[in-house]
Order: sequence, then C-alpha cells, then structure tokens
Amino acid sequence: MTTTEWETIEGGVCAPRGFRAAGVTCGIKNPDSPKRDLALILTDFSAETAGVFTQNEVKAAPVKLSQTYLKQATPRAIVANSGNANACTGTVGMEHARRMADTAAKALGIRRREVLVCSTGIIGMPMPIQRIEPKMPDLAADLGDDTEANARAAEAIMTSDTRPKVEAIRIRIGGKEIRLGAIAKGAGMINPNMATMLCFVTTDAKISKAELQAATREANDLSFNRITIDGDMSTNDTVLVMANGQAGNRIITKGGPGSRLFREALTELMRRMAKKIVADGERVTKLVEVVVKGAYTDADAEKVARAVANSKLVKCSWNGQDPNWGRVIHAVGYSGARIREEMVDIYFDGRCAAKHGLATDTPLEELEKAVSGPKFRVCIDLNLGRGEYNVYTSDLSPEYVLFNREEYAAAKQKR
Amino acid sequence: MTTTEWETIEGGVCAPRGFRAAGVTCGIKNPDSPKRDLALILTDFSAETAGVFTQNEVKAAPVKLSQTYLKQATPRAIVANSGNANACTGTVGMEHARRMADTAAKALGIRRREVLVCSTGIIGMPMPIQRIEPKMPDLAADLGDDTEANARAAEAIMTSDTRPKVEAIRIRIGGKEIRLGAIAKGAGMINPNMATMLCFVTTDAKISKAELQAATREANDLSFNRITIDGDMSTNDTVLVMANGQAGNRIITKGGPGSRLFREALTELMRRMAKKIVADGERVTKLVEVVVKGAYTDADAEKVARAVANSKLVKCSWNGQDPNWGRVIHAVGYSGARIREEMVDIYFDGRCAAKHGLATDTPLEELEKAVSGPKFRVCIDLNLGRGEYNVYTSDLSPEYVLFNREEYAAAKQKR
Repeated sequence: MTTTEWETIEGGVCAPRGFRAAGVTCGIKNPDSPKRDLALILTDFSAETAGVFTQNEVKAAPVKLSQTYLKQATPRAIVANSGNANACTGTVGMEHARRMADTAAKALGIRRREVLVCSTGIIGMPMPIQRIEPKMPDLAADLGDDTEANARAAEAIMTSDTRPKVEAIRIRIGGKEIRLGAIAKGAGMINPNMATMLCFVTTDAKISKAELQAATREANDLSFNRITIDGDMSTNDTVLVMANGQAGNRIITKGGPGSRLFREALTELMRRMAKKIVADGERVTKLVEVVVKGAYTDADAEKVARAVANSKLVKCSWNGQDPNWGRVIHAVGYSGARIREEMVDIYFDGRCAAKHGLATDTPLEELEKAVSGPKFRVCIDLNLGRGEYNVYTSDLSPEYVLFNREEYAAAKQKR
Repeated sequence: MTTTEWETIEGGVCAPRGFRAAGVTCGIKNPDSPKRDLALILTDFSAETAGVFTQNEVKAAPVKLSQTYLKQATPRAIVANSGNANACTGTVGMEHARRMADTAAKALGIRRREVLVCSTGIIGMPMPIQRIEPKMPDLAADLGDDTEANARAAEAIMTSDTRPKVEAIRIRIGGKEIRLGAIAKGAGMINPNMATMLCFVTTDAKISKAELQAATREANDLSFNRITIDGDMSTNDTVLVMANGQAGNRIITKGGPGSRLFREALTELMRRMAKKIVADGERVTKLVEVVVKGAYTDADAEKVARAVANSKLVKCSWNGQDPNWGRVIHAVGYSGARIREEMVDIYFDGRCAAKHGLATDTPLEELEKAVSGPKFRVCIDLNLGRGEYNVYTSDLSPEYVLFNREEYAAAKQKR
C-alpha cells in the first residue's frame, strides 16, 4: 500500500472524535519543577481497549493493576505519571497505584476499575502519592479536546525525552473518515520486547475487541518490538489502544471489510512513534535501520538483525562515522543464526562494503559518507534463503554513558 | 581446596621445563612502531596439545588452520601475531596463515603442520605477510627459556591491552613438581564464549591427550567463559594448552591419581588470566563479580548473571559509583530465568541493598562505599532453589566508547 492512503493530521490523541486529554504539574520527581508530570486521556463514550505490556518478570505495580482492570472492566480513562515508575515498591506500591485510579475516577465521576494507570521514572522509590492525589481535580478540570490539551498530556509523560512525541493520521474505511492519534515517551532502556516506553493510541474507529487486540499485537510486533537503544527492557512498558466507535463506520471485525486497512494504519502510526523514540534515545546521534535478508528463515534474520543492532562495538563505530563492516560481520557470526561467511554481503545505504565476506573496492569515502548522516540503513544479505527482518537502532555515544552515570550524581546532589 | 596447594612462580610459559618463547617486531599494524608483534612458543620435546576456539560462525583463517593442524599432527610450536586478525580475508587469508606456519616451521626445522597459528587485531584487512616472513629466522633466534623471553612473547601478543598478562604456578602430584605457565591478551570484545582473547598455557605435566582436552574444556568453562566486557564475541578467540611431560610424573588420565588436582590448578591459572583480562578491559575502571544463587537451576542462575553483567544501564551505574539495585533487578526480570520479584535479595559486597524485592534501610553511604572501589561483588539471591553461577564483568565508561570510536579516526589519520 502507498502512504497516500493516510493523511497526517494535528491533535495527537485528541484528533479522534470523543477523546479529551490533560496534563498538570505535581512535582513528583522534583517538587520545585514546573514540568507537567501527570497526564489523563478520557473517552467521552464507551470504548474498547487493547493493551500490550512489558514481558519483564519484574512488573511495576501500575502494570499489574492495569492488566487486572483491563480484564475486569471497560476502561474509560488512562492516568499516567512521569518521575516515578512505582516499580519494586511491593504492596505499598500496589496500594498507591490503586489510589491513583481511585482519585482519578472520583474526579471524573466514573468507576475505579475504568481507570488504567501507567507510571514511568525511577525504580524502587515510593511514589509520592501525597503530591498526586490533591492534583486529580485539577487534572480533570484541565481536560480539553484540542491540540493544546494533547500537548499538555504529551509533556506530562516525558522523562529524559528531549521532545514530546505526537502523531495523528486519518484514513477512510467504507466511506467513513477514521482518525487515529498517539502520544508516547521513550528515551532510555529501549529494547524488545518494547522499551521503557509508554504509547497511548486513540481512535474513533468502531472495531471489535478481539480485532482491536489482534491489530494492536501485530502493529506492536512491527514497530515497538523492532527498536532497540541499549538492549535493556523496562518494568513499565505499556501500549494502550482505545477505540470509541464515534467515526460511525460499520464495525471492523477479524478479516472483515476494512480490517487490513485499519491494521496497516495502526502499524504506520506506531512505526512513526517507534522511530521518534529511537531518534530521541538518550544522547543518540543516529537512527539506523538494520535490514537482514536472504536468511534461511525470518527467525534467523531476526537473530542477525538483533545481534548487529545491539552490538556495543558496532554502535560505537557508527558514533565515530566508521563504516566498519568487520564489526558487523563479527556480530553476524555470533548471532546464532545459520550463516555462511563466504556468502555475506554488507551494504551501507546501498553502497556495498563487503561482498561474499570480503572487502570490496567501493571507495572508503563513499562508505564514510553513508554512515555520516543522522539516518542510514545497514543491509545484510546472507544469500541463503528468503528470510527477512528489520530493526531500528541507534549509535552508542560517550554522552549516553555519561548521562546514565551522572543521573545518579544529579539525584544525589538534590537530596 | 585451599590456595596453599599451589605456589605462584615466575617465568610464564617458560616456567615449565622444556619450553622456550620469543617475541620480535615486524611492524604489522604500523611499520614504524617498535612494539613487538610476533610471538613464538616452542616445546623442545613432543607434547600433547588441547585447544578451545571461538564459537563465532565467522572464524579467522588462522583459527580454521589451527583446528585442522591440531587434528592432523602433534604440535610443537605456536606462532602468534598481533596487529591483524587475518579474519574475513578469504582464500588469500588462508594462504597467509599457511605461509606463517610454513616459514616458522622452516626456521625451527620442524614440519608445517606442527605449527599452530594465531592472529589478533583488525578484521577484514589483508595480512602484511611480506613484513612477517623475513622475520621468522630472527624469531627462532630470539628463543629463550627465561622470564625475559616470556616477557617478549607476552608483549608481542598485546593489542589494546595496557599491560602484559603472565602467570605461572606449581603444584605437586605424586611427589613430582608440576609447573603450569600462561600468557594471554584480552582487552575489547570480551564475551562468552570467550573473548577477543588469546591464552597460551604450557605445562610439563605428563597427561593423556583426552584428559588434557577435558581439563582444558572444564577450566575454560569456569574461567574465560565467565567473563564479559562488551558482550561481543570475536572471530579469533583461542586457548591452547601444551603439555610436554617433562615433570616425570606418572601419566595423568581421566579420573586417575592427580587428575582432579591438575584440573583445579589449570582452572586456577586460567581464572587468574581471565580476571586480568577483565580488569584490563578497554577503558574499564572496575572488576565486578556477579554471583547468582538460589535459582531453580544453574542454567537459570547463568541467565540472570549474564543479563546483569551485560546490561549497559547496570554497567553505566557502576561507572558512576551508583549502587542502583533497581537497574539490577530490572535485568534480573528480563533475563528469561524463572524468578519471583518478591523473593529477590541483592547485595553489594555483602551489604543488603534489596530484600524480597524491596529497598532496605542499609545506609546509602554504605552501599556507595561498596561500589566505589576498583573491585566488588554483586550477589543476587533468588531464594527459589540451589542453582548458582558467577560471571566477572566490568563497568561501562564514556572512555570505552570514545576509545572504540576513535580507533578509526586514528587509523584514518595514518593512511
């Protein structure tokens, strides 16, 4: 399909009809900071909601709570905070997550189980619930359905992100205009499955719960599960997709009319968010797509793509504008996939650096030019079969290490 | 067993009787450098040799050649160069490796197949064989059986190592003194299985080939396979152990008298080398032992140890003297091992940072002190079973990234 089938629009999660958003300041991480840190998304109409959560065995309290509520009720709202992950906080943490749902529900006049809770930030520290609860009425009062309201919510979920992440698109299904909007936060710890990332998608499509869940899984597999910054997987990753049916379309069901188009639109939206997350990774200077083809199987291709995308030595070389195909092939070799060294071709942005496992005579200047930009593609052709996979990754910078080292010194100074 | 059963001695690979070593300068990486870069180890008597090689699917030419020769003949000598890995060099690379064996054999008056070849350095560049071959007679003439000769060989295999790695010990088996000596090179790309590392061990023990191979595998599993610096696995890793029987002991066979003691001594020697390699990792400031216990199985414990030891975020926190147990437990969570968050205890050098998945009231100053030194231990008790594993790792420094980024700029300047 061509990209002309969807049109980019403004408004993020407020773009689809019947959704409102808000963001206020609680001072969760730092009582003196003016940064918004508590977000709310509300559907004014009953909605279906699909969720994908971290596969880390250590799950934050709000993840566990939201998974339970999603089974027990039909969510109407998402309340999300930045500054504290409420992870490794035991029964007290669970109580705090519940109280966040409870006070949000009271402020909105809905039931506690209709509120999903998400948190992101530091692990192992008690949530300063006393600074959050009093702000819930303000948060409800802040709700708006415009671009500005969306921007407040997008700001409130940011942690070390340097910019808010907002997207919205519209498509037509059966003559009806359907809108999809999203906000997300990313930055560090980005890895399959998923990242320390939150992504909230709203849509006014009318869609069955089963099809919404299947579409969300598929889109997630093709987007957030294919990005990696530091190879770490967070305790809090959550993707939520709410569909409230206000577009007035005939209900989309599995395999029915419009289902393929809706899945592709959702995938496109989530891919755009995923790329924004990698490009804004902590102290990242390059967005690199690793494409593997010619593997015996897709699974083999995935092993190669992930090994290359996560290799510290490969990522260091990109940071130094070094078209180092030797480090790439060494990662190919230890990936666990079936490969034959003498069959491997490696390209940097279409320029062939290695053919059949050996250096080519492509001028080094051309290869250097390919890896010098802020965005490029590394293509590895194993020349063995038809298996394919792609992953988005980044370089590894000294500033990344400094940032993740000095976060602590900064926090220490404050106490 | 206690460490009093072995005694540390001088001389490295020359400590055991009947071995000689040499090291000369060829200018392989840089024709103007005075650094030695071609090493030789020779046994004056027939010997058994055991080898463990990289499991990377992309194997350097000398690795393939040495694996073949080891099957076909009884090696008498090891010739090893630094500055060029002779990897991803195709049939020309194989021809160069053969020529290295050939010219060494001629200079020594032995057969080509009796010479094992090892190379370490840059990948994907042709070996400057024309600078190596003329130096083989000098290399043979440089052979000596003393500490200085050993030091020349140890220097010649160094790449980005900041110091040579030499060890020797002696033990008594059946009333006979048996000596074991080793030289190694490490630095970057250190990971299971093994590292960009070479380790050559000599011993004057009399031992069957089968038992020597089994002892080498066991010692390797307990030493080099348990270290990690950057998670990358090299194309050239090689451990060779030569035993020439000059100690005059009754032959050691599998399960026979002295076999346990010999294995423990070999393990001790290789462990010392492994720790030296991590401590001298590229721009590393800390040697950290990650000990996991209480897992359901040893395999589960290994998964947890490796996840923690390879987490970029965990390693950054150590570089910043940050006793961040939250990052540790998040790596425990995604390790793939069976864990229960509410059972996990985490200790830094014996001080409890987290108990049952929650923060303790151990003063932060104490925890900081634990992780501030150049050496400490992180112990993770899963409290589920009796599975155990340990890994040696390092911190991740901004200087590591700079070093691996700027290697290229430096090489570029030279051409």
